[in-house]
Amino acid sequence: MVKQYIDTHQQRFLNELFELLRIPSVSADSRHKGDVRKAAEYLVNKLQEAGVDKVELCETPGHPIVYAEKIVNPTLPTVLVYGHYDVQPPDPLDLWTSPPFEPVIKDEKIYARGSCDDKGQVYMHVKAFEAMMKLNALTCNMKFMIEGEEEVGSEHLDVFVKENKEKLKADIILISDTAIISLDHPSITTGLRGLSYVEVEVTGPNRDLHSGVYGGAVANPVNVLSKMIASMHDEQGRVTIPGFYDKVVELSAADREAINKAPFNLDHYKKELGIDDIQGEKGYTTLERTGIRPTLDVNGIWGGYTGEGAKTVLPSKAYAKISMRLVPDQNNTEITELFSNYFTSIAPKSVKIKVTPLHGGQPGVTPTDSVAFKAASAAFEEVWGKKPIPTRDGGSIPIVALFKKELGLDTVLMGFGLDSDAIHSPNEHYGVKNFLLGIETIVTFYKHFAKA
Amino acid sequence: MVKQYIDTHQQRFLNELFELLRIPSVSADSRHKGDVRKAAEYLVNKLQEAGVDKVELCETPGHPIVYAEKIVNPTLPTVLVYGHYDVQPPDPLDLWTSPPFEPVIKDEKIYARGSCDDKGQVYMHVKAFEAMMKLNALTCNMKFMIEGEEEVGSEHLDVFVKENKEKLKADIILISDTAIISLDHPSITTGLRGLSYVEVEVTGPNRDLHSGVYGGAVANPVNVLSKMIASMHDEQGRVTIPGFYDKVVELSAADREAINKAPFNLDHYKKELGIDDIQGEKGYTTLERTGIRPTLDVNGIWGGYTGEGAKTVLPSKAYAKISMRLVPDQNNTEITELFSNYFTSIAPKSVKIKVTPLHGGQPGVTPTDSVAFKAASAAFEEVWGKKPIPTRDGGSIPIVALFKKELGLDTVLMGFGLDSDAIHSPNEHYGVKNFLLGIETIVTFYKHFAKA
Repeated sequence: MVKQYIDTHQQRFLNELFELLRIPSVSADSRHKGDVRKAAEYLVNKLQEAGVDKVELCETPGHPIVYAEKIVNPTLPTVLVYGHYDVQPPDPLDLWTSPPFEPVIKDEKIYARGSCDDKGQVYMHVKAFEAMMKLNALTCNMKFMIEGEEEVGSEHLDVFVKENKEKLKADIILISDTAIISLDHPSITTGLRGLSYVEVEVTGPNRDLHSGVYGGAVANPVNVLSKMIASMHDEQGRVTIPGFYDKVVELSAADREAINKAPFNLDHYKKELGIDDIQGEKGYTTLERTGIRPTLDVNGIWGGYTGEGAKTVLPSKAYAKISMRLVPDQNNTEITELFSNYFTSIAPKSVKIKVTPLHGGQPGVTPTDSVAFKAASAAFEEVWGKKPIPTRDGGSIPIVALFKKELGLDTVLMGFGLDSDAIHSPNEHYGVKNFLLGIETIVTFYKHFAKA
Repeated sequence: MVKQYIDTHQQRFLNELFELLRIPSVSADSRHKGDVRKAAEYLVNKLQEAGVDKVELCETPGHPIVYAEKIVNPTLPTVLVYGHYDVQPPDPLDLWTSPPFEPVIKDEKIYARGSCDDKGQVYMHVKAFEAMMKLNALTCNMKFMIEGEEEVGSEHLDVFVKENKEKLKADIILISDTAIISLDHPSITTGLRGLSYVEVEVTGPNRDLHSGVYGGAVANPVNVLSKMIASMHDEQGRVTIPGFYDKVVELSAADREAINKAPFNLDHYKKELGIDDIQGEKGYTTLERTGIRPTLDVNGIWGGYTGEGAKTVLPSKAYAKISMRLVPDQNNTEITELFSNYFTSIAPKSVKIKVTPLHGGQPGVTPTDSVAFKAASAAFEEVWGKKPIPTRDGGSIPIVALFKKELGLDTVLMGFGLDSDAIHSPNEHYGVKNFLLGIETIVTFYKHFAKA
């Protein structure tokens, strides 16, 4: 019956999603402030049409949060759906094969910024809700909280959650903002890495200098920054910040074995990425490196002359954006401070250092023995014909730790993307099949969850 | 008499120079191709007006070369003046206090891109020629060769010189494209460093990746590039490229002592640059580090997300522009090859490397016992009241080695800039006094040179 409803309405579902994808709701770019709001308003309208009792555009000092609810019966269990309608910047634009905000379907995949992360996945919940309403199959109370600042660190969600504990009361959080292993191997993410993201500025001389006149005698901030970045890892691929690993939970041999049971083909992985070799912390597999180990990556670097041709400049400044992925029980505020202290301490006297924290989030682990997790697992099994594999994911959804802390609620991470969806990259896409099966799986989750 | 002529006409001289400075002849930027030509044409007109026998705009596959000559008497000695009318790109534009191509005089300095390097210094020779013509004081034959590609490696000068040996026949080359120590300490540059300038590209995965999903398992090209750059210097501040120092001429204790006799105040140097400490090769003074030692500097670096806010990307590519200043008897072609081989050899298997040579030039030393050098020294002494100090300069004028090789001619580097003129930087400037005294010194040089 659900399947039939989805089949009948799939073209309309896709058309609606395309309308949402056409709105360039890039939260990091202040020029798109109006577009971010437009995306929120679009969701408000669609939730209204789908039959919620009430829906609100909640203002924050940044981008608004969409809140909606449908209370079927106060005695029934309540599911709070979280997601985000903002997207990553589309740069570099020239690598997109079709414009990022003009969605198209190619090879049964929807190509557009946000198609997977997270508009496509959020919209599955809106349409699952519509289906249950139309089929009279909604057996739980439902609440929606869809924010517009996830890609810039969910800056104002914290206060919103703290100030709306009563409104947000629920039994479980349901989030679709993660990936399954493959269409053949459904999986549920049970752990997420935290994040500490900073920008560093290294200042040498007070102005750009001629590299011939001063080179060799005055510290070059780009060379200095390079050396500082290089020294953040040792030969084992471990991060050298003192205390960085102090709170890292080392998993048991059995837990590590379980993680490595997930299907993974190194040759295929390398081929798909076009690399001849992988690289990471010694003593850990790729699945462990991205799942249970903390990391440090430069996300961007710039300084000096970057235009056409040659300019013999010894630049005054060099910059980098550096982020660390964290695992339980690392604390992102602590790690940001450890980074800042260490980075400043290793700088030579010949330069000045500025570290600006940009955003952060706590790592989290979700329980696998809860009623909700079991319902999610059963839903996957029913729709996909296979029991989903629990996995540890490399990405960060800081909201998971926030929900646990402020609302006392566990989360089920029922995501439907694929790692190959190129989220945060040019040519982001999302499988039409993932989108449609996702809606069906979500509806099926409610059936199992209500029964339990 | 010379002094009086300069005094009388100084306002016109400056007005004309300003017209030349208003032409944005940025040779590195193809959008300015027409402007570069315009600057050449301006010189053609002004040389004509000043009374040359003939002047030509010589085409090359790149920007044209201005050639002019005044043959007073074939039996007299001939001076070939070399200079360039192209300028460095003005970036970063926002650091200029007045627009780079709208010259203004502030504190008796001319602020504009090219005011010192090299339009201002070239134009002194045009006006010195004019003065000698008007005063009937030209006692030598004069030739001018003013090119438009010095800031991009003088790519087509080589062929031009080889093909015009007869036309360029002279007794000495005179170039004003260097600096004096200060207005109180005139000096003549006797050595110039060579240059090897390359661009490197490090490619990791075939697309930008989400740093959460892949970070820690896939080599990050920015981290890799940083490490590679860091490993180009050892703890002694020496360049680690094997063979890099093999041909470096080590100076005698006496020669080093002579270099260090030049006035230099470390506190003032640090204060003027706004730095707390200097940095360079151990065992050498600042004057030695910039004068007689080879160096390696990153002139620009870029990769990943460099916009506003935070983007958690593991970039596909990272780039750097790297240049090495060379000293006798290093060979720039050899050094570029050594760099390329070494840089490729230290790359991990997880990335791919591309090295593109951008430009290069040979280091050179000019004799201090020649008739021309002595005439230059006498001219400085007569006009400035002090004997000029011979210095080794950090910059590069590859033409010096080219002239020696192809034309068998020595060069006198009679420059009048100051190291603090911010050439290649925002707010480049050139002292009005330097400009006017320079013209007088040049005229005086001819007097002494003809007498010898």
